[in-house]
Amino acid sequence: MSGGQADMPSQSIMKAAMQAYVDRTNAGDAEGLIALFAPDAYMEDPVGTPLKYRDEMAAFFRDGVIYGAHIVLDGPIRGSHANEAAMSFEVRFTPPNSPRMLIRSLDVCTFNQDGLITSLRAFWGPDDICEAPTE
Amino acid sequence: MSGGQADMPSQSIMKAAMQAYVDRTNAGDAEGLIALFAPDAYMEDPVGTPLKYRDEMAAFFRDGVIYGAHIVLDGPIRGSHANEAAMSFEVRFTPPNSPRMLIRSLDVCTFNQDGLITSLRAFWGPDDICEAPTE
Repeated sequence: MSGGQADMPSQSIMKAAMQAYVDRTNAGDAEGLIALFAPDAYMEDPVGTPLKYRDEMAAFFRDGVIYGAHIVLDGPIRGSHANEAAMSFEVRFTPPNSPRMLIRSLDVCTFNQDGLITSLRAFWGPDDICEAPTE
Repeated sequence: MSGGQADMPSQSIMKAAMQAYVDRTNAGDAEGLIALFAPDAYMEDPVGTPLKYRDEMAAFFRDGVIYGAHIVLDGPIRGSHANEAAMSFEVRFTPPNSPRMLIRSLDVCTFNQDGLITSLRAFWGPDDICEAPTE
């Protein structure tokens, strides 16, 4: 229902894709996660580290499933007046030989006109990861 | 205390600048807000609309004071492994001849090595602004 140019996905399509990123992470659905991305998409997670392309992203998602990654959003997903949307969240996961960890992240995605993610940049720094408090 | 290259501000400097952006907005300190930005900085608020440079940013901040802009963060400010940081928040304000409004925004900033903001991109779309619920 919201504005946007003809070559941009709607607000609702972008927000639904980011909600699906959360839901499929929490469902342990690595194949479903990679399906949200365009073939040439990249992920910069965290911002300032080397870009991951499709094969590395798929491996990243499979690791996330093994590590029991679970995301809780801080609030509603944001759109924009362009082909970008963003969300703030906490993610908990258990790497090998590690206690359960918590990252406070904030992800910005760009989209193509088909509603597929073309880039994901995850903002979290060395101070935004810690051992998860007991749940 | 966190990592970073020699030409990047520390995590704590970037986060303090973004917290100051919140605090000075809430204090109605338009001059203090513009002082957080590098001389050639730009603001894209919201993402997808024309860039504002120094003079337009100063006018934007003065309007914000007149409109009683008040920000509440959704959670901790995020850093990165580069010269970027981000935060998610709600801002309430009262434009002329309008009820009090609420925008759910998410702002990403880049910084120079002096810790001044060189760009601010605010993610909010046409679906992320509404009349503010009664406080």
